[in-house]
Amino acid sequence: MIIMMRPDASEREVEQISEMLRAHGLAPRRSHNAGRTVIGALGTAGATSVPGLPELCDQLREAPGVEAVLPVSQPYQLASREFHPEPTEVRIPAPAGEVVIGGEQIVMMAGPCTVESEAQLLAAAHAAREGGATILRGGAYKPSTSPYGFRGLGVAGLELLARARAETGLAVVTEVMTPAEVELVCAYTDILQVGARNMQNYYLLDEVGRSTRPVLLKRGLAATIEEWLLAAEYILAQGNPNVILCERGIRSFERLTRNTVDINAVPLVKQLSHLPVIVDPSQGTGKRSLVGPVALAAVAAGADGLIVEIHPQPDAALKDGAQSLTLEQYAGLMPQVRAVAAAVRRSVALPQTLQTTPVAQAPSVVALASAG
Amino acid sequence: MIIMMRPDASEREVEQISEMLRAHGLAPRRSHNAGRTVIGALGTAGATSVPGLPELCDQLREAPGVEAVLPVSQPYQLASREFHPEPTEVRIPAPAGEVVIGGEQIVMMAGPCTVESEAQLLAAAHAAREGGATILRGGAYKPSTSPYGFRGLGVAGLELLARARAETGLAVVTEVMTPAEVELVCAYTDILQVGARNMQNYYLLDEVGRSTRPVLLKRGLAATIEEWLLAAEYILAQGNPNVILCERGIRSFERLTRNTVDINAVPLVKQLSHLPVIVDPSQGTGKRSLVGPVALAAVAAGADGLIVEIHPQPDAALKDGAQSLTLEQYAGLMPQVRAVAAAVRRSVALPQTLQTTPVAQAPSVVALASAG
Amino acid sequence: MIIMMRPDASEREVEQISEMLRAHGLAPRRSHNAGRTVIGALGTAGATSVPGLPELCDQLREAPGVEAVLPVSQPYQLASREFHPEPTEVRIPAPAGEVVIGGEQIVMMAGPCTVESEAQLLAAAHAAREGGATILRGGAYKPSTSPYGFRGLGVAGLELLARARAETGLAVVTEVMTPAEVELVCAYTDILQVGARNMQNYYLLDEVGRSTRPVLLKRGLAATIEEWLLAAEYILAQGNPNVILCERGIRSFERLTRNTVDINAVPLVKQLSHLPVIVDPSQGTGKRSLVGPVALAAVAAGADGLIVEIHPQPDAALKDGAQSLTLEQYAGLMPQVRAVAAAVRRSVALPQTLQTTPVAQAPSVVALASAG
Amino acid sequence: MIIMMRPDASEREVEQISEMLRAHGLAPRRSHNAGRTVIGALGTAGATSVPGLPELCDQLREAPGVEAVLPVSQPYQLASREFHPEPTEVRIPAPAGEVVIGGEQIVMMAGPCTVESEAQLLAAAHAAREGGATILRGGAYKPSTSPYGFRGLGVAGLELLARARAETGLAVVTEVMTPAEVELVCAYTDILQVGARNMQNYYLLDEVGRSTRPVLLKRGLAATIEEWLLAAEYILAQGNPNVILCERGIRSFERLTRNTVDINAVPLVKQLSHLPVIVDPSQGTGKRSLVGPVALAAVAAGADGLIVEIHPQPDAALKDGAQSLTLEQYAGLMPQVRAVAAAVRRSVALPQTLQTTPVAQAPSVVALASAG
Repeated sequence: MIIMMRPDASEREVEQISEMLRAHGLAPRRSHNAGRTVIGALGTAGATSVPGLPELCDQLREAPGVEAVLPVSQPYQLASREFHPEPTEVRIPAPAGEVVIGGEQIVMMAGPCTVESEAQLLAAAHAAREGGATILRGGAYKPSTSPYGFRGLGVAGLELLARARAETGLAVVTEVMTPAEVELVCAYTDILQVGARNMQNYYLLDEVGRSTRPVLLKRGLAATIEEWLLAAEYILAQGNPNVILCERGIRSFERLTRNTVDINAVPLVKQLSHLPVIVDPSQGTGKRSLVGPVALAAVAAGADGLIVEIHPQPDAALKDGAQSLTLEQYAGLMPQVRAVAAAVRRSVALPQTLQTTPVAQAPSVVALASAG
Repeated sequence: MIIMMRPDASEREVEQISEMLRAHGLAPRRSHNAGRTVIGALGTAGATSVPGLPELCDQLREAPGVEAVLPVSQPYQLASREFHPEPTEVRIPAPAGEVVIGGEQIVMMAGPCTVESEAQLLAAAHAAREGGATILRGGAYKPSTSPYGFRGLGVAGLELLARARAETGLAVVTEVMTPAEVELVCAYTDILQVGARNMQNYYLLDEVGRSTRPVLLKRGLAATIEEWLLAAEYILAQGNPNVILCERGIRSFERLTRNTVDINAVPLVKQLSHLPVIVDPSQGTGKRSLVGPVALAAVAAGADGLIVEIHPQPDAALKDGAQSLTLEQYAGLMPQVRAVAAAVRRSVALPQTLQTTPVAQAPSVVALASAG
Repeated sequence: MIIMMRPDASEREVEQISEMLRAHGLAPRRSHNAGRTVIGALGTAGATSVPGLPELCDQLREAPGVEAVLPVSQPYQLASREFHPEPTEVRIPAPAGEVVIGGEQIVMMAGPCTVESEAQLLAAAHAAREGGATILRGGAYKPSTSPYGFRGLGVAGLELLARARAETGLAVVTEVMTPAEVELVCAYTDILQVGARNMQNYYLLDEVGRSTRPVLLKRGLAATIEEWLLAAEYILAQGNPNVILCERGIRSFERLTRNTVDINAVPLVKQLSHLPVIVDPSQGTGKRSLVGPVALAAVAAGADGLIVEIHPQPDAALKDGAQSLTLEQYAGLMPQVRAVAAAVRRSVALPQTLQTTPVAQAPSVVALASAG
Repeated sequence: MIIMMRPDASEREVEQISEMLRAHGLAPRRSHNAGRTVIGALGTAGATSVPGLPELCDQLREAPGVEAVLPVSQPYQLASREFHPEPTEVRIPAPAGEVVIGGEQIVMMAGPCTVESEAQLLAAAHAAREGGATILRGGAYKPSTSPYGFRGLGVAGLELLARARAETGLAVVTEVMTPAEVELVCAYTDILQVGARNMQNYYLLDEVGRSTRPVLLKRGLAATIEEWLLAAEYILAQGNPNVILCERGIRSFERLTRNTVDINAVPLVKQLSHLPVIVDPSQGTGKRSLVGPVALAAVAAGADGLIVEIHPQPDAALKDGAQSLTLEQYAGLMPQVRAVAAAVRRSVALPQTLQTTPVAQAPSVVALASAG
């Protein structure tokens, strides 16, 4: 249920409505639309039945300052366009300048699948920046299908990411796999990635929702769009509005590709939700030769960004080398991304000129941690 | 098995190799690559075992004029890039000038899902042409999931298509559903469409393969890319080289869209095969609001064309109105298609200026039929 | 729309209702339920709109002899339990005695995937009969994913099937792939199989619907249960009531099995429809070691029969040897099938004692043809 | 890599081999097969490359007491039949007597989807026991697709389960959702359930692997069989051998059922692995009317047990009422389960006669906790 206030509704009237909701056990959440306050009554979306709801609706409609009381047509509410008609812009305070995801500009994230060594990460990070990325990706904690596979460097990997961040000024996105490590990962990173296998790990969603750090929420391998938006709703409902959705391919019967990028999902999610959507053509295809064309397709379809895997020596990569671009391939792709972005009347965000003493000016690990 | 001849191999040497193949029960097929004749030995792809094949290979390697004998790594052969490294350009002699699919230019096909009436079809056909399409689509024979659904106007629909063809000069693509109707449909149309439900209707594939008319082969709803290319191989193996592949969405678990466009398939099929690939964003999404973004994505991913459903009054359409663009939406989409095509260094084929007396100059139904 | 007549409604009253329906362009079909005539008005199921339908309903409700006028809740009508509450029993007049599918007894069909030779077919046919099958399966026309694969012996295969039928007294089921061959296949066979790839080949469904020969309708590889029942509706709507449904596995993401048997579909289809349902554990698994357990599961779930592939030498089979049981494995499975059937209070139909001069007494090919 | 020792190999020889493995960074694990010790070298399965492995193999083959050194053909090792040819029997020390899963007897688990109240749980628990279940299921922590859905009673739910356990003597299985709660859930329960959404929550798998409590590992909604067995391998690799696999339906395109029970998986997993496999026909179908037939199918296919949802008033259930059997339906199903079990030469484990003072004799919560 969404309560649209009149343009001239007073703060007292807004608060009075909030109180009426709380008295019925419903949590009020405020948003804004065309100069008006909008109040979402959490817990009234979807099939959930609330005793006395019809009567409450009638009372709300009569209350001072209320223009309309609308039902929510989707099972998610805070994530819906109905509740929040304007697109959400997620702001990331990177060392080399703020990055905005969900605005006019398309944001490029690049880096290795997995942090393997200082040399590998720094080579990739510098190449990422030179190619025009503003965000560095890299896994320190890696989900491995086999218990005998490589599971990442852990804290050592986080430290390398912080080093690359300081050197390049790029913001960093890295995966967090369990609630107990959210605080630690927040101390080293700008964006918390929730991986596809954890899209319905609700304790993890709750925990990143209690953080203020932006969250990159990958779509689960067999998650419907509705389930994906409900996973975002978990994070939003905890008070963290900074959710970035990432389409990374779904599981289908096709065997020549690792996953099937659901390109339909890009415009559909933009229509259903105000949250930014990016695409991962590396995971989404599993094949280096397909990454470029699918990246361009994503931009043409309206994606707000891309996240691609790059590696100085893909054939020597510990994980997923077959889907990593070489640094040269990545450099060659970026002008094409800019051209397609221009064709759909957008541009690609560029890294700002790095200050002369980047390491000193980058937020220290401690400062980052306290901000989390 | 593919036999690469030397650049200086004589016709007699080529024929001698062909004879050796025939003597082992194998059908030879010629292709060309960088100035050399290439001979494909049909029936040696995939798992099929041919008695005496290793010995035959040895003999072929020693034969005069032969440069190399290569195994085929895919179960299809004529459809593979290995056999035919250059992209195939399918040429369609439309009234208003030849249309080429698979070349530098992207080809636009538009029209109603189903031919309903003269007024509906002509309105859509003129709008298609004005928006920049060179090919008119429209179903006269329609597969209907229910026996009680509309199954098309049949011959009356074909006649209306011929009328629209004559008036607009556009080439026409329409579906043929059974071998017995191939000749009839050939009499009225420029491109034979084999629908998704019939992708493995092998008698139909054989029959359109015996025609010389270009064939638009839609991917089956649960067909792997390999099965799709093997369906194309059926047509090619009958001697018809003019196959255009069409990705139209696969069946997945997602319920908010009718199908899931497999955007990965576009570049992958271009890499595996020399055949042109187009995309159907109308069937592929089932939702009008997604047709535009997915059409742009297809072009960015490297598609050689688009086929979109348009209708003067989508809400009154007998079939699939929810996925049909209005004529205005279609007109608004076309400049965006051109912009994205330019971004990937291609252009969109435009209809040539129509002759002053188009009806008289259009090939008559009889002439078309005799050409089939 | 279904019109339930009163128990005492006269034939004249029934005919009057039928006339009213015809006057509105609707085809009446009669069924019976608990001593009453039930009239289905074809073309009123699902979304199809018929002008003047509400007024017609009112008139029908007032007409003499009518007890109730019911909407149809499913898009199929003749296939629904609502229209035909009693289970349909399909009767097959085999040389060695009538076989009934859909009654108390479970029916066993066995034989080779493909007819390869007289020796192979007769060995399999005799083993099938000795193990307790009443129906012989065997493909003379085979759908092959590759144009270079084996496509069956054709008429020679049909003749071998007729020979095996005469020798063993078993009824024969074989696939028909195109409308033009329905009459020919009818001349040699007792049950027409429509394969999974042809489940939505509507011209073929229409044609087998115009036959009176029982039809084994396999579920398409990506067909929903609703689409499958609508395919059955095509056959029923042409006047052939003898449809047997066959679950043969659907396409999923699982890669260790060829298909995924949808065991849920067995009881669900029995609840939604009155048609008999059998299961094909050979196609459904693709692995010999799984055929037995899945066959038993199908019987436990309520299947009315099984169709299994057996071969005297599976490892030398031209097609699908990996999923064929040896004759010994088949013989070993049958007592287990009987035990599970007994556990769910059913039994397995046994072949009747063959007459002393079976060949002479079997219906001649000519007689069979004229019956088709 | 698996090292088969000679039947007469000494403990010293076995230990020597183990040392050789450790010296190469490989963890040795012992198993037994036909009177011989078998040593698995963890970390050598699948694609993982270990430097010097071929040389080590040669040395092992020459070492005293070694009969053979075998490669592992699957990416999982401890879970494979190759490593552990005999079926694993998981033993659960319930108050009313030990329950064995994976032996000759089929084990029945029943109870409500979610613990809602004392009255609801105790009614279901007594009915479960009277019908012949030996294990009580019930969720205290529930994964909910929506953040506004019911997420379970938490500790209060665990306490009710302990109460029901004491009253009925049944063992209890309940879901644990995050590593931090494993210890708590162990304190109240006999079997830890890892739900489908958490099948690849590797921290949770590690944590339940460090427990000695049996683990019921549900198959993920889009998990291949190989991924499922690799998830089991995570638990086994941590030292907990008590893993029970549970097929609960996979996600497919079919829309009339909630999930698609992969019945093929039951015999296939029994062939690939030594671990017991049970089936959940409630989650697997989502429809009460299908639970019985699919339960019988599972038993016929070789499942070692069933887990079914029952509820005193399904229509008033907080969660998943549509798939819960009434207590009467459950009571009616059990004799059918026994009949089908007998048909496949197995029986259904019955609850032992409860002691006269069950509450006092049931292990206290503290005792249970210390055992965890």
